[in-house]
Amino acid sequence: MRQRHKPWADDYLKEKEHIVLENPTIHKGKWKEVFGNDNPVHVEIGSGKGQFISGMAKQYPHINFVGIEVAKSIIVSAVQKVDEAGVDNARLLNVDATDIRELFAENEIGEIYLNFSDPWPKNRHEKRRLTFKHFLEQYQDILTDKGEIVLKTDNRGLFEYSLVSFSEYGMKLIEVNLDLHAIEDATNVQTEYEEKFASQGHVIYRCKAAF
Amino acid sequence: MRQRHKPWADDYLKEKEHIVLENPTIHKGKWKEVFGNDNPVHVEIGSGKGQFISGMAKQYPHINFVGIEVAKSIIVSAVQKVDEAGVDNARLLNVDATDIRELFAENEIGEIYLNFSDPWPKNRHEKRRLTFKHFLEQYQDILTDKGEIVLKTDNRGLFEYSLVSFSEYGMKLIEVNLDLHAIEDATNVQTEYEEKFASQGHVIYRCKAAF
Repeated sequence: MRQRHKPWADDYLKEKEHIVLENPTIHKGKWKEVFGNDNPVHVEIGSGKGQFISGMAKQYPHINFVGIEVAKSIIVSAVQKVDEAGVDNARLLNVDATDIRELFAENEIGEIYLNFSDPWPKNRHEKRRLTFKHFLEQYQDILTDKGEIVLKTDNRGLFEYSLVSFSEYGMKLIEVNLDLHAIEDATNVQTEYEEKFASQGHVIYRCKAAF
Repeated sequence: MRQRHKPWADDYLKEKEHIVLENPTIHKGKWKEVFGNDNPVHVEIGSGKGQFISGMAKQYPHINFVGIEVAKSIIVSAVQKVDEAGVDNARLLNVDATDIRELFAENEIGEIYLNFSDPWPKNRHEKRRLTFKHFLEQYQDILTDKGEIVLKTDNRGLFEYSLVSFSEYGMKLIEVNLDLHAIEDATNVQTEYEEKFASQGHVIYRCKAAF
């Protein structure tokens, strides 16, 4: 989505640059230094308004979280949520993750979260789906050997596509859940979209896959 | 399920022994001879009342179908349906497919259909599910190199389990459909259970997987 220029957003992000990092590529291979500890680093691609990443950071203080969100006007809300949560184990990056290997080194990441990603339903847009093989190749490089991709969506087409794409790539499905909200799961941190779609009666799908 | 002794069923099956074969193990490796042609042979495990296998045999005259159903009182209906369909490319076997390799030789089968199989929801019954790894090993032996398993069910737990089981075994998912009835698909031959559950609003899942 095209973003309007919002000077106040620039100012706010500048003020909160301890949360939303400038020039994030300089931290490639050095994320342990950013967080000042040896805890695993998990990445969310497409953090939106930040409910998931701030909730996860609170729930899992011994994991470090990096959230990526290209839309400046949206990441502002995520920065606010992380700030309000008072956590020091979450950072945000206002960049377009065309190749995530510019941000993270090989084996640097423990888990990648793809939450309610754009489904790009038209066949000719397959390459833009975040579970297209070219993206999987990138994820494979930055994930540790036991690293997992955790995909959550209400979009049936994207979920079906992703299961087949993971499988074709040679990945293993660790878990498949075809109605995440059917069972009470206290460990599930909901995203904004998830709350909204689930309240409208949509089924929420989740799977975990590893290389 | 325990079957009551039904003398009329015995008589009927005896009368229709050109459809429901006695001593089927003698045909292992020789199913082309049974059908008198070189067409591919597809197998349905758990044919129930036979709506699927009779419908498939009608729809695909150049494929041979073998349906297995252990319950004598139920297979009687399947024999009637195949008889009424007037097809000569379907046979039924009233046996317990504990090890399907007793019935079919290596590479003899093109496709295996598992339709609305017993989900065996309790963890301690995992080994009885028809997508448990020991069964996959058997299917792998009798299927051709490009052979597929086609699984159809309304049971979420069984479907989730099966996707992970296929993946763990090293199989590839060729297709995943999480709401088969959402799109009109004229090639989909419905089973009795499928009609019933779909009319009650259940989602029907289908996947195709290969070794």
